[in-house]
Amino acid sequence: MSRYVYLFSDLDAAQAAAGPDWSDVRRLLGGKGANLADVTRLGLPVPPGFTVTTEACLRFQEGDGTLPDEIWSQQLEAVKALEGQVGRGFGDPASSLLVSCRSGAPVSMPGMMDTVLNIGLNDQIAEAAMGRGRQPRFVFDLYRRVVHMFGNVVLGVEDEIFERVLHERRLEAGAHDDTGLSAKDWEFVTEEFKKIVRSYAGREFPQDPFEQLKLATTAVFRSWDSNRARDYRAAAGIPDDLGTAVNVQTMVYGNVGVGSATGVCMSRNATNGRPELEGDYLPNAQGEDVVAGNRVTRHISELATAMPEIHAELVEMAKTLERHYRNMQDMEFTVEEGKLWLLQTRDGKRTAQAEVRIAVDQANEGLISKEEAVQRVKPDQVDFFLHPQFEPDAVAAAMSIATGLNVSPGAAVGRIALDADTAKRWADDGVKVILVRPETKPDDVHGMLAAEGLLTSRGGRTSHAALVARQFGKPAVVGVEDLVLDMESRVVRFPDGTEIAEREFISVDGTTGHVFQGEIETLVPDLADPHLLRILEWADEFRELEVRANADYPDDARRAREYGASGIGLCRTEHMFFEKERLPIVQRMIMAPTASERDDAILQLLPLQRQEFEGLFEAMDGLPVIIRLIDPPLHEFLPALEDLLRDLTDLKIKAQHARTLPELDDLLDQVREKQAFLMGVEELREQNPMLGNRGVRLAIQIPNLVRMQVRAIILAACACVRRGVDVHPEIMIPLVGHVSELRKVREILEAEAHKVMEEQGITVPYRFGTMIEVPRAAVTAGEIAEEAEFFSFGTNDLTQMTLGISRDDAEAGFLIEYQRQHVLPDNPFRTIDREGVGAVMRIAVENGRAVRPELEIGICGEHGGEPKSVGFCHELGLDYVSCSPFRVPIARLAAAHAALKDRPAEAPAEAAREMAGAT
Amino acid sequence: MSRYVYLFSDLDAAQAAAGPDWSDVRRLLGGKGANLADVTRLGLPVPPGFTVTTEACLRFQEGDGTLPDEIWSQQLEAVKALEGQVGRGFGDPASSLLVSCRSGAPVSMPGMMDTVLNIGLNDQIAEAAMGRGRQPRFVFDLYRRVVHMFGNVVLGVEDEIFERVLHERRLEAGAHDDTGLSAKDWEFVTEEFKKIVRSYAGREFPQDPFEQLKLATTAVFRSWDSNRARDYRAAAGIPDDLGTAVNVQTMVYGNVGVGSATGVCMSRNATNGRPELEGDYLPNAQGEDVVAGNRVTRHISELATAMPEIHAELVEMAKTLERHYRNMQDMEFTVEEGKLWLLQTRDGKRTAQAEVRIAVDQANEGLISKEEAVQRVKPDQVDFFLHPQFEPDAVAAAMSIATGLNVSPGAAVGRIALDADTAKRWADDGVKVILVRPETKPDDVHGMLAAEGLLTSRGGRTSHAALVARQFGKPAVVGVEDLVLDMESRVVRFPDGTEIAEREFISVDGTTGHVFQGEIETLVPDLADPHLLRILEWADEFRELEVRANADYPDDARRAREYGASGIGLCRTEHMFFEKERLPIVQRMIMAPTASERDDAILQLLPLQRQEFEGLFEAMDGLPVIIRLIDPPLHEFLPALEDLLRDLTDLKIKAQHARTLPELDDLLDQVREKQAFLMGVEELREQNPMLGNRGVRLAIQIPNLVRMQVRAIILAACACVRRGVDVHPEIMIPLVGHVSELRKVREILEAEAHKVMEEQGITVPYRFGTMIEVPRAAVTAGEIAEEAEFFSFGTNDLTQMTLGISRDDAEAGFLIEYQRQHVLPDNPFRTIDREGVGAVMRIAVENGRAVRPELEIGICGEHGGEPKSVGFCHELGLDYVSCSPFRVPIARLAAAHAALKDRPAEAPAEAAREMAGAT
Repeated sequence: MSRYVYLFSDLDAAQAAAGPDWSDVRRLLGGKGANLADVTRLGLPVPPGFTVTTEACLRFQEGDGTLPDEIWSQQLEAVKALEGQVGRGFGDPASSLLVSCRSGAPVSMPGMMDTVLNIGLNDQIAEAAMGRGRQPRFVFDLYRRVVHMFGNVVLGVEDEIFERVLHERRLEAGAHDDTGLSAKDWEFVTEEFKKIVRSYAGREFPQDPFEQLKLATTAVFRSWDSNRARDYRAAAGIPDDLGTAVNVQTMVYGNVGVGSATGVCMSRNATNGRPELEGDYLPNAQGEDVVAGNRVTRHISELATAMPEIHAELVEMAKTLERHYRNMQDMEFTVEEGKLWLLQTRDGKRTAQAEVRIAVDQANEGLISKEEAVQRVKPDQVDFFLHPQFEPDAVAAAMSIATGLNVSPGAAVGRIALDADTAKRWADDGVKVILVRPETKPDDVHGMLAAEGLLTSRGGRTSHAALVARQFGKPAVVGVEDLVLDMESRVVRFPDGTEIAEREFISVDGTTGHVFQGEIETLVPDLADPHLLRILEWADEFRELEVRANADYPDDARRAREYGASGIGLCRTEHMFFEKERLPIVQRMIMAPTASERDDAILQLLPLQRQEFEGLFEAMDGLPVIIRLIDPPLHEFLPALEDLLRDLTDLKIKAQHARTLPELDDLLDQVREKQAFLMGVEELREQNPMLGNRGVRLAIQIPNLVRMQVRAIILAACACVRRGVDVHPEIMIPLVGHVSELRKVREILEAEAHKVMEEQGITVPYRFGTMIEVPRAAVTAGEIAEEAEFFSFGTNDLTQMTLGISRDDAEAGFLIEYQRQHVLPDNPFRTIDREGVGAVMRIAVENGRAVRPELEIGICGEHGGEPKSVGFCHELGLDYVSCSPFRVPIARLAAAHAALKDRPAEAPAEAAREMAGAT
Repeated sequence: MSRYVYLFSDLDAAQAAAGPDWSDVRRLLGGKGANLADVTRLGLPVPPGFTVTTEACLRFQEGDGTLPDEIWSQQLEAVKALEGQVGRGFGDPASSLLVSCRSGAPVSMPGMMDTVLNIGLNDQIAEAAMGRGRQPRFVFDLYRRVVHMFGNVVLGVEDEIFERVLHERRLEAGAHDDTGLSAKDWEFVTEEFKKIVRSYAGREFPQDPFEQLKLATTAVFRSWDSNRARDYRAAAGIPDDLGTAVNVQTMVYGNVGVGSATGVCMSRNATNGRPELEGDYLPNAQGEDVVAGNRVTRHISELATAMPEIHAELVEMAKTLERHYRNMQDMEFTVEEGKLWLLQTRDGKRTAQAEVRIAVDQANEGLISKEEAVQRVKPDQVDFFLHPQFEPDAVAAAMSIATGLNVSPGAAVGRIALDADTAKRWADDGVKVILVRPETKPDDVHGMLAAEGLLTSRGGRTSHAALVARQFGKPAVVGVEDLVLDMESRVVRFPDGTEIAEREFISVDGTTGHVFQGEIETLVPDLADPHLLRILEWADEFRELEVRANADYPDDARRAREYGASGIGLCRTEHMFFEKERLPIVQRMIMAPTASERDDAILQLLPLQRQEFEGLFEAMDGLPVIIRLIDPPLHEFLPALEDLLRDLTDLKIKAQHARTLPELDDLLDQVREKQAFLMGVEELREQNPMLGNRGVRLAIQIPNLVRMQVRAIILAACACVRRGVDVHPEIMIPLVGHVSELRKVREILEAEAHKVMEEQGITVPYRFGTMIEVPRAAVTAGEIAEEAEFFSFGTNDLTQMTLGISRDDAEAGFLIEYQRQHVLPDNPFRTIDREGVGAVMRIAVENGRAVRPELEIGICGEHGGEPKSVGFCHELGLDYVSCSPFRVPIARLAAAHAALKDRPAEAPAEAAREMAGAT
């Protein structure tokens, strides 16, 4: 005969039956059951109980919908054992053992039957209890609860019907909250509830305690097969054959009187991570009362005064649990007439800031290893320290006027704009706006980009608004259901009734999903948080990937170094060309009618470039600096053809209206000049500039331009060497697809470098390398490695070409539809597409290192700062990742995670975490 | 002691010394020496002689510039042996053995010393010969030749100086050609030549025959190291350590009198391949006289009357040589007093038409195998049958007014246009033009495209004009040095003095490099040439690749089938959308404001598509037809944004000038309408449309469009089945990069296909497949093969993405510079880039077939009709290539070549060809 029921106190037997791993135990007993048994074995005061296994559930599913006798008889035995443990009898009016009944699947899962408390109570037992001196108010409080919960979750009567009775009774009694209700009130409510059951469920509330238990058990098992549970499993990929367990536990009562209480409490502060209990409790209350909001709760620190011994015991219990689970705990407890009971514990949810501090503190306390501390903080949590957030006290003081889905983190404050064009117009005028829309469409993207944040009434986590907001890092709250946009009067009505006109301020918290009226103070949490610095320090001990930064200016380089970058992985030289005082020189160079005029313009750029390079080398004293030669197509430095056409039209129309001959002549001159310029721009125009005349292709056609850049690099390096700066320039040639491009250009540039060094009488240790961003370069990496001393993956372009997707067009276009339809698992421009782009990268690494084993290989695309992609780079065996200075800390942590993943798992820590994950 | 000299009659010894392969013999004796020895062994009447080996040349190069004694002494021995063979003495006035001396390297090579005839002649021997009864005219004719040639090629005196004397003498004698000159004249010329040598070379013409021979030998060896020869070797990649041989051969005389003659002759007609001798001869002439043009030559057929026995002997000799070399021969012969001598033979150059006929005839005669016949015709030669050519008789009758480099084949006739804009304007008006320019620049491309053909005065085979012309298949002659373009009077002056005004006709032959005045009749040689058909038939027996055609319309399909296509590899369905009556429907579909209006437009396209598909299926009865669903970005069906902007400007200006209020209102309405349309177009616009919203991406967004296409395909197929047509539609989805794109779309389309078949009550055997044109598709081909029943490489896009090159921009842009600088070996859009794109294709083939071994894989990019690329497709193991109908015959032949390359080489044929390659 199979065993379907285990006492909490019989974990050893359950483990023997389930298997050696804790996951086997969870699978058999469900998460909650396994957890309660575990804490029982730990010697903590858990009310005794037993678990009906998931196997029983599966057995039930096979049958006709009635609980098999075999299971029920084992439950009866367990009830007997329970009676022995607590010294009371189930259904025995003389001693009145009551129990709770809860579901508990191996994985946390909504859609299933929740909790029924106080099972075992009936008219006779209630009477007897009062006869034994129990307060009638206490007894009827228990009784009305069991009828309510049983009626609702077992018999399926709508909750609202019960709640209405309660509400009316409170009104009649003029009670501020439930403490204002008397024994009589509860007796009346109990009777009303029984009537409700009778008329809505078509049956009496069962007076037989065993029938109550049997029906509750059956209801849990049946709920495994409910539509809601099935749908959830299908969506979350949870197999149907797991089943759920049922936990039957002795009731303890926090509502017996002043010496009783019930509460929830975290073992550490969940907001900032400080090592202190945090939570709330209510004296003389039961169950959900603390979270229901019917009574004003007390802060857990008050318990130290109210019940000093209990408080001390709770502190000790928290320590024991943290030692056992090696993580911060979220506990439910009840104090029954001076005795503390632990009802449940699990890993506590916490903010990023708290996560970091707790990880560091627990490691310092010896509770967890440094490796675990590092692994516990998710790279994305570091992001918290970089995004503006609302000032916590200001948020606490503010009233949330709406709550929606927190789809894109960060805090945003601005004036309401009710359409994209308005948002764009105001933003162009320097006004900060929040775009508020029913939903967004591709047409709205210009307004979304202009806004500080987004708020919509429709749409889910993968709606257009959500995707675009995350894409562009805009804080966003979507799907606020009762948000009404009155486009006539240009007013927004919030779910709480607040009306706010367009152009007024609101504050949107994309991290929590809350919306506030007015301007709430924001702050950028400090990256210099000492606990974060400690975690990053530890991460550095474990990671194998170097982390460099993409930085074009000395200021960026300095910041990057502060954030822990060990070099520059990408300096985009052309960014310097876009600056106001330089652009005219660059345009002169591009449009030069003769080679010598072009060379003149090029020479004017030399001192400007040289100066920037000196600043970079100084900021990166002792570290490598990879400088990429000019990359974009030349027409990017010129005005858009459409703008020129429109200007020309305006001029022509003006000329039509000229009043004097000299005015006309002047305007016609302007027309001619504009026309000539336009023709020049038109000639440079390309149908697909991304695949056009750029990168090394420019170098081959205008060798003097890159020759000048190399001269500027080497001159700057020489000047730095003279000042005692340790320079390591690495010169990178972009867009190489064929080795002979690299060979030709390198030949010219090496000659120039040598010439400059000879002129200066100084030798600079430099290297030549190339981007790997054209798929052809990847598949012929063996040949290319013969000419290149280093590779740097330009995964932005490599992704565009490998996938045949123009990023700028697609991210605001078909990629949104693709993600909505789940055609692609991730945005490949966010996370490296492992199967596609990743395969191409692997070919390049293997072929390149086969030819030149010491080849330095890194990545400088935006993926270099994205945790999953960093992990992939580690797997590929790259030497470094390079990302924007702000993402350097994220990359450092991600690199450590990747390296730690390779280590043999540390079994106890893992198991403990998993155990604590039970809810 | 090394042996440096071999008699022609001692080939066995040379072979023993050189090695087993004929290439070793060629390496030792040089091409000409080996060839002469070979023909000697064959028993043909070759004037005896000997070869000083290439090893002697290398030995000479090591020394101080004088001929080592060891070599000279062996030469002296060989002269002795020669004297024995012919019974005359070298330098012996009594018998006068004269010899020629020629260079002969292992590979044909310009830049080296050519020929000196009549070595051994001096005053004393001349005197003695006349004493023995030789005609003085004959003797001085020989003497003036040796002084001339020796002075020129051994002593380095400019040829023109000698020629001037001859020219003046002819004028003085009033002689029409050299036959008009007397013995006295030649004696005078000889003396003048001696004077020239004395004053220009600073030495007397050597009277010692042995000194003549020694100096001539030294001059040949020295010429191996000349600048011209070195440059040529560097450019052609010929190693410097090959060396050249020297061939010393007994002179025979075609200028002894009426019983003597000299001539050149082909064993078959080199123009049309007919099996008849073809060539010219001159009675009583020596050496270069036949080709020098100083005398009017006679056709070889006249020899049958003039010297019937010699003619018969020559016919026999040609047969013997063809049997030996298994190819058509180009022979030089001399008749000395009734005796026929063979001086040289080599494989004859011939037209494409002749190549085809000769290959077929020789195979039919049993001279070569069918395999060899097929291999002998180059695929590009088939191109000849497809390009217009000038009518041969018309060309023969016309005077060439200029000759330049024949850089792009074909015949073109048109009116001269002197600049690109003019060419474009006239061409737009329907006038056929030839663009004549000093050279071309990227600015000229629009004019080049508009022209029938090109003519330039500057530039070489890799000039902009040449590259662009070949790119776009425009006949072109470039680098006509003395071509003068008078841009003032708009007249072209040709090298021969002809002046032709702009707008007058010229004819340009890009195949031969000749230019003619006026319009010459052109003809498209017939693809139905019976010999070509035979070669293609044989090719079909050998090839393993199937050849299909890219055809969008039933007419194309029929032509393709005639040309031997065994199916359609690509039908571009969108081409049908571009037709005049359909474009408005397509535009309505694109700009539809609602989904239902869009669906209406889509449904209007259904019957049109269906009709075309029926035509295709009928034309390809029994064969597969691959139909690709819509591919290009939608905005390709709309007018260009710039054009709309310009129209709008015009409208606005017009509105400014409106004279009445109604007129103004009307114009403003038009402005508004245009503006709205323009905004719609602007919205669809993409920065990089090639990587944009097209192919399967459209299918995912507008599933009803592709659903309609599939409905049209299956409806057409059902209708055909009803009429008894055997249909094999294959439905191809373009631009797939991720398997889930294919999965999603296929699901929708399979459902539609089944629905139509059910409606029609007919089952059609169809397949679903995909293009492999995105690199990601190639690297994840394993996954994709799970959904695709066939692959078709779209190598145009695959090349664009793998190389990161936008073809339309690059081919008229930086790729020209790239080819000029030899950055890329070939144009990758012409010939598949094996190392890059080829590697990606190989990955796709391997991964795809690993998952689905029976996967049908083909290619439908333009490369499918290019011989080298076809060869690569064969190597990759593809099932078929698909190309434009006109290129189907080329692909058939190329496929056969590729298959035959795999076979074990047929040694004798190969060796024979190589031997005959000697010159």
